[in-house]
Amino acid sequence: MSSYTAAIIVIGDEILSGRTKDSNSHFIAKNLLEEGIKLEEIIVIKDDKKTIIDRISNYSKKYTYIFTTGGIGPTHDDITSESISEAFNLSYEINEDAFKILDAYYPNGEFNESRQRMAKMPVGSELILNPITAAPGFKIKNVYVFAGIPKIMQSMFHSISSKLKGGIIIKSKTITCDIGEGKIASDLSQIEKQFLNMKIGSYPYFNPQSFGTSIVIRSENIDDIDLALEKLTKIIKQ
Amino acid sequence: MSSYTAAIIVIGDEILSGRTKDSNSHFIAKNLLEEGIKLEEIIVIKDDKKTIIDRISNYSKKYTYIFTTGGIGPTHDDITSESISEAFNLSYEINEDAFKILDAYYPNGEFNESRQRMAKMPVGSELILNPITAAPGFKIKNVYVFAGIPKIMQSMFHSISSKLKGGIIIKSKTITCDIGEGKIASDLSQIEKQFLNMKIGSYPYFNPQSFGTSIVIRSENIDDIDLALEKLTKIIKQ
Repeated sequence: MSSYTAAIIVIGDEILSGRTKDSNSHFIAKNLLEEGIKLEEIIVIKDDKKTIIDRISNYSKKYTYIFTTGGIGPTHDDITSESISEAFNLSYEINEDAFKILDAYYPNGEFNESRQRMAKMPVGSELILNPITAAPGFKIKNVYVFAGIPKIMQSMFHSISSKLKGGIIIKSKTITCDIGEGKIASDLSQIEKQFLNMKIGSYPYFNPQSFGTSIVIRSENIDDIDLALEKLTKIIKQ
Repeated sequence: MSSYTAAIIVIGDEILSGRTKDSNSHFIAKNLLEEGIKLEEIIVIKDDKKTIIDRISNYSKKYTYIFTTGGIGPTHDDITSESISEAFNLSYEINEDAFKILDAYYPNGEFNESRQRMAKMPVGSELILNPITAAPGFKIKNVYVFAGIPKIMQSMFHSISSKLKGGIIIKSKTITCDIGEGKIASDLSQIEKQFLNMKIGSYPYFNPQSFGTSIVIRSENIDDIDLALEKLTKIIKQ
């Protein structure tokens, strides 16, 4: 299995209060799979300095990559950059390149004090460019700091994803059948055991018209997947 | 602020691999707000016994309520009930009521060994009924264990929500304007400071047609919210 791991830290009261639905972590999850990076955990935490510092400190030690979303705007509740600086004991200061980008973006007189906060980040950060509203994200150590607005976050992710080091890519195939998962549970477990590093997941679905199970077979080895699929198909057709 | 707190633990490899989009935590988040319970954290973890045990042990001590979703089906990757039993050092055994419900639900001969696993849970659990596919969730200590399928999860939540003890309900009002958040950032911060326990959040939006900011004012005190809204409206209209 892949030795490159990751966690996503979603920062934002608006998710915890149910005001906003987080779609960023789903986007990152799908993309990490394609890069061969194993997403181990997603956490959603509030806009609270102590909590952010604690989680960044702990998770950056545990996983290869950390991705954060949210909290890098111009307002008083945007405390991600400041908190990450503290987590790493780094000075929180104006990044000259970020300052220039923002200064050029805003019309004369509109690059005010609040907006200048968006140029502040941990010293030594590499910028992650934002083609949409200019205010950049950044990378510091193994932490990638993205904006919370989905379109901006996605463009930031795409601009760094080619630089991520991935491992063996886990492949998967899905088969759907109109059998309740309880009927084939023991077969699935038995097939899984016949292969090295295979994971078979089953996901029941139902709606007023029909019910059944989607079965997902995951492995590094596509031949193993095909072999397992063959065994499974025989059982389903019985 | 409310002294009743909560965390959601979403259990499932399928979320971390990006296969499935978690909608359950958003549903629970919205509903907890209405109950006056402060959601402090959402975590998504993999189907791994050690991880589940660790998080249940820690989080059940930290928060008033824990809600889990996923991993209580009949297959080998459904290990939530077993893991929670271990986390609390409780015996994992057949619940007689759950067994009867499931036995009555399945046609003759179909209540097989795999499906009987769905009747196993920590000893002393209270059942949470499932009107859709019979297999119940359960409550043990301060942990509510729900199914992962959204419709079932929602019905389970509604059946227990009236029993949850909530605190003071945080009210909120939202105002939307076509001003960039950077322009009003310092005003927002100043207004927030004038009130006790008020939180003002600002959420920028943009699309090809327009951009602007949604401002959400949150407080226990509706009069404070209205007063803050009045101040804010004056600033926006300038």
